[in-house]
Amino acid sequence: MTIFDAATAVSRRADGRYEARPDVRFALVVPGSGTPPAVNGGALLATVLRAVLSESPHPHPVATSAHFLRVPQLAPAQVEVSWLKRGGTAATARAALVQDGKVILDTTITTGTVAAGTAGGLDWTGPPPDFPAIEDCVDLGRWPGTVSRDGTAGYAAQVEVLFDPATTGWRRDEPSGLPEMRGYFRLRDDRPPDALLLAMAVDGLPPVVFGLGATGWAPTVELTWHMRAVPAAGPLAVQTRARHVSSGWFDEEAEVWDAAGRLVAQSRQLARVGRGPLRAPADAAANSAAADSTAANGAADPQTAAILLRGTPRALPDSP
Amino acid sequence: MTIFDAATAVSRRADGRYEARPDVRFALVVPGSGTPPAVNGGALLATVLRAVLSESPHPHPVATSAHFLRVPQLAPAQVEVSWLKRGGTAATARAALVQDGKVILDTTITTGTVAAGTAGGLDWTGPPPDFPAIEDCVDLGRWPGTVSRDGTAGYAAQVEVLFDPATTGWRRDEPSGLPEMRGYFRLRDDRPPDALLLAMAVDGLPPVVFGLGATGWAPTVELTWHMRAVPAAGPLAVQTRARHVSSGWFDEEAEVWDAAGRLVAQSRQLARVGRGPLRAPADAAANSAAADSTAANGAADPQTAAILLRGTPRALPDSP
Repeated sequence: MTIFDAATAVSRRADGRYEARPDVRFALVVPGSGTPPAVNGGALLATVLRAVLSESPHPHPVATSAHFLRVPQLAPAQVEVSWLKRGGTAATARAALVQDGKVILDTTITTGTVAAGTAGGLDWTGPPPDFPAIEDCVDLGRWPGTVSRDGTAGYAAQVEVLFDPATTGWRRDEPSGLPEMRGYFRLRDDRPPDALLLAMAVDGLPPVVFGLGATGWAPTVELTWHMRAVPAAGPLAVQTRARHVSSGWFDEEAEVWDAAGRLVAQSRQLARVGRGPLRAPADAAANSAAADSTAANGAADPQTAAILLRGTPRALPDSP
Repeated sequence: MTIFDAATAVSRRADGRYEARPDVRFALVVPGSGTPPAVNGGALLATVLRAVLSESPHPHPVATSAHFLRVPQLAPAQVEVSWLKRGGTAATARAALVQDGKVILDTTITTGTVAAGTAGGLDWTGPPPDFPAIEDCVDLGRWPGTVSRDGTAGYAAQVEVLFDPATTGWRRDEPSGLPEMRGYFRLRDDRPPDALLLAMAVDGLPPVVFGLGATGWAPTVELTWHMRAVPAAGPLAVQTRARHVSSGWFDEEAEVWDAAGRLVAQSRQLARVGRGPLRAPADAAANSAAADSTAANGAADPQTAAILLRGTPRALPDSP
């Protein structure tokens, strides 16, 4: 069993009731790193989906809406599932991750069936994003704080993202001026992608507003994602962009394409702009150079700390 | 009070409990038209939002996730609201429209505050869609079946959409081959747009898959929308598109821009492709002609019937 499957496991206790545990191996900030440990939101979403899919009459989570309310503890939690409808084409459940009687993550999930390849009937896909070859992409490294001293724990020890160099300027204090990221996403464990991994991929890249010079913790408030096809084996190409940033809110849309070139997942999240200092976008032409991998693997700095805190099921700063 | 405000009114009965009634004046199919009367989904969403906003510590529904489960009756219904969190920046409620003990429409709504104009801090918007001037757009008419004999009842009697002629080829059996629609959306009543009207605008145009030749009832399964700014007075410019259609599912993304040129709302829905016959896309060059308004206002045909059925809180064909 892979670390991902173990870390997102659920144990059935009764109809619609499961035990789970936010797992340090997917912590974005490992214990002792100064800030409270926080587990990647995609890993929590995968945990909830695992419970729902175990009861679902249909195999695929075609529509998952998630509102992130509080930061979970690295302690036992419950997944509570209740079905609102079980139809022949689609079934809908509410499911929540709960700790100490408080909802950490609230979801509504509709399941159905999508194809693994080309299906009959109307089949149309828009133009794919322009991705460089994977060998031309860069690893920004395992960020300090997301891996424990022995190198085994923490999100960055489990997940590899190879970035389009054009979207890494922010890492060198030279944001491109465009809110977009592109990267190849995969587990370091050899495990083919599925619905559970797609739930992590749609929130797996750094906040797109880093490209506009924003820094700091950018908590997701709401994320909805749609599974559109069963992914082929191989790395997932993830493209994200924003359309509008104001009043401290930004949207982040993700498209996930599989190794066979099919659009397999789409998402949009609404998140808060981080409160870190705003950096001036650099000359866009200067941003095509590859990131300095020495710096990327060096000591923690504000941006790496911001990455650490991204994708977490985080409470907003004012959360009780 | 406008018809829209009367039709989406709620009466408070207790904490978190309201009475409402799906209103024939926003029926997509009026009684006696052959199929059961069905009320526009946006009108139902506005009803639920009205109840939630009446209790919310924040003024704007920044993130609304809605799963459409069943077709409502033109009969009393209840809105049930329960709060999961009330924070200083955001508050989250679950809210459902219920009839005869069954959930018709299940939502999770996070409220917060967005700006009416340019706010401080990071402010960025992507390029706007290419809209023709409103005087170059065309009215496809009040479709038979959506208005009662005296002309006062039904969705098309309350709402006006003026279409970009380039996206109306499907109306003449000449779909463009592109899944996109553009139109100016407003109430026939003189009423400025607000959050409640945005909830209707994001699902106010015909299904984008009509542009690919699909016909027939295209039920929304899930719709999430984000309010991004307080809209200025005037008509709303709504652009929709799809990115992927397969296995009978399609996505439809909407952007809503106000008369001041601000992006005020975004949405994505997952819906089922209608089961009507598939029409071959026409030569794209032939589609820039204006729609034939005589035909548009004539007798009902399969496409107009499909329009009637769009945007409704509809059960899937297999729904119990």
